[in-house]
Amino acid sequence: MFTVVLFCNSQLWCKVKGVETEGEFNFCHHEKHNKPISMSESQQFDQLFQELSDVLTECTGQEAEIGDAMAWFKKVLSFNVPHGKKNRGKSVVASYKALVSNPSEEDLKLAGIIGWCVELLQAFFLVTDDIMDGSLTRRGQPCWYKMDGVGLLAINDAIFLEMSMYRIFRQYLKDKPYYVNIMELFHEATNQTLVGQCLDMITAPPQGSVDFSQFNMERYSAIVKWKTAFYSFYLPIASAMYMNGITDETSHSTARRILLKMGHFFQVQDDYLDCYGDPEVIGKIGTDIEDNKCSWLVVQALSRVNDDQREVLKNCYGCQDSGKVKRVKDLYRELNLSDEYRKFEERSYKEIMDIIESCESLPKDMFIHYVNSVYKRNK
Amino acid sequence: MFTVVLFCNSQLWCKVKGVETEGEFNFCHHEKHNKPISMSESQQFDQLFQELSDVLTECTGQEAEIGDAMAWFKKVLSFNVPHGKKNRGKSVVASYKALVSNPSEEDLKLAGIIGWCVELLQAFFLVTDDIMDGSLTRRGQPCWYKMDGVGLLAINDAIFLEMSMYRIFRQYLKDKPYYVNIMELFHEATNQTLVGQCLDMITAPPQGSVDFSQFNMERYSAIVKWKTAFYSFYLPIASAMYMNGITDETSHSTARRILLKMGHFFQVQDDYLDCYGDPEVIGKIGTDIEDNKCSWLVVQALSRVNDDQREVLKNCYGCQDSGKVKRVKDLYRELNLSDEYRKFEERSYKEIMDIIESCESLPKDMFIHYVNSVYKRNK
Repeated sequence: MFTVVLFCNSQLWCKVKGVETEGEFNFCHHEKHNKPISMSESQQFDQLFQELSDVLTECTGQEAEIGDAMAWFKKVLSFNVPHGKKNRGKSVVASYKALVSNPSEEDLKLAGIIGWCVELLQAFFLVTDDIMDGSLTRRGQPCWYKMDGVGLLAINDAIFLEMSMYRIFRQYLKDKPYYVNIMELFHEATNQTLVGQCLDMITAPPQGSVDFSQFNMERYSAIVKWKTAFYSFYLPIASAMYMNGITDETSHSTARRILLKMGHFFQVQDDYLDCYGDPEVIGKIGTDIEDNKCSWLVVQALSRVNDDQREVLKNCYGCQDSGKVKRVKDLYRELNLSDEYRKFEERSYKEIMDIIESCESLPKDMFIHYVNSVYKRNK
Repeated sequence: MFTVVLFCNSQLWCKVKGVETEGEFNFCHHEKHNKPISMSESQQFDQLFQELSDVLTECTGQEAEIGDAMAWFKKVLSFNVPHGKKNRGKSVVASYKALVSNPSEEDLKLAGIIGWCVELLQAFFLVTDDIMDGSLTRRGQPCWYKMDGVGLLAINDAIFLEMSMYRIFRQYLKDKPYYVNIMELFHEATNQTLVGQCLDMITAPPQGSVDFSQFNMERYSAIVKWKTAFYSFYLPIASAMYMNGITDETSHSTARRILLKMGHFFQVQDDYLDCYGDPEVIGKIGTDIEDNKCSWLVVQALSRVNDDQREVLKNCYGCQDSGKVKRVKDLYRELNLSDEYRKFEERSYKEIMDIIESCESLPKDMFIHYVNSVYKRNK
């Protein structure tokens, strides 16, 4: 079962249960929200990547001496950057379109370029996270650091991906009034994610024993906000806002409120689906219980258990043993966590809708477009 | 034997063989170059670190939720940043003083702050390099990633050190005309170092078999220039230049020529001392031969060997076996590499002096101060 939720301009929202078709998207009642990004727009976005990859790895005459490094980085880019869902990147373009009625071709290209920088940031985090978590596969192929001849050189490669963003900004945005805003925004989003990653790892160390002392809703919310929501939700839209000259703190604070709430909602949904989703539909087999993750479900469980049930969790959480995993899932059932999730879902919709409704200064369409593109996920 | 080389304003240079005393420095004929940085100046620089560490890890009311992460990062900062020689950092202050006749207290503080950012960059590289190289100790203590409870979270910590630079710039330099210059300069220096690290690792993979096909002087020079010289030599002085409003490419290109040449010289000296230096004096036991490093010595050797000698190198280089290491050192002796080094040393001095002499636009003192502070090394 896969839940897709859309908000639309008239402040209706609709919940559709089902799996979306790749490249198509028609869950909303309103004609204008039913149009998928046309193939040519999606292709245009994809084509930009080739140009950026060339710019990032070209050697001018003087730099022939670093040709081998540049050839290496070309592989780093093509392996790690363009094979995701690219929702974050494309949403910069969509948000910019929602903000500006008749954008020029040049500005749309720049929005796409900034979009690819969000994708570079994402690639940077994924490469380093996979090393830190000791993961084996990513997007259906081996993790980059697991590839022959790569190993821990992947750390250097990840930082190359990170620094590529600033080379692109300098090359394409140098003369734009929002050049510094964008640099500062990406610095800030990177920092926030580092804080979240740190919080996550000290809360549930990958090689540590199970220790629930830090698993509570406040900590959970902080990890989600800092590790995921800032860079996945606020960053793409804030980029489009800066491009359009929106720099005032009031507007950004409104956008942040809406988007961080969306980010929180999506992460809870993700945690829920990790346990209750159909692997065929969500595209992966959830392992949050085995991996001792500070998931929304375990935090909810901990606030509801009696002493005996707590003992069960302590003995069975964070173990690979399938019997123990089943015991945890049974406990979740005893505690009615599905009901709890549904209540949370209803409440969240309402809260997010209320903020969007009360938002005067920003086009509501912008958030809708974003939700459209991000909700279009099956994993 | 430890070689210290000084350039001074009147274009004399003097070579002094001996070990410098910590905190003192009087190798040059000229009174004004004999003054060590006074204790209070050095202390002032050190004290700045406390302020920066507080700024980087403070939690305002709203941010109480990330208090545990900030406490962690405070440990990351104090373990990894302030215990080096700090030559790179202090040289920003010294260069700024050489450029400006009566600097204000405020500007000197800012030079010190930018100096600490060079130290943060250095710490970032050291933490990641140690992980990539599988090193065990650094500055006489275990490497950060080897500390209890750290492990690969050190990757996240390293990136926190990197990003801290930009938080500091934003906090202290936001209103300065050179804010963007400094950000771009640090981005560029980071990028150059990543390119150098990549070149180094694909030339001599840490876990690879010995392969001399890429060990040649052109590759060696490229690695030194990109991996070390830009950020260790050009970056601190270029920072001081930007602070003083020197932004023209001619001046920067002159400075770069001088400083990259110095960087090359120092690295060759470092490679030479790794093999021929007295461990008591250089403070470490050299392991370039064991570690299969693309060192200046092995590159020189490879250009001089006959077929039999090449076979010896192939069999004995990159091995931990002390007999094999000795065999390589014997071969270096047969090939008179010490003489070769001395010839290189003489030639380098002359070339660097010629460029400094011909430099009209920049104060020669600036380079002297820098050489003073950097040559003051015993490891």
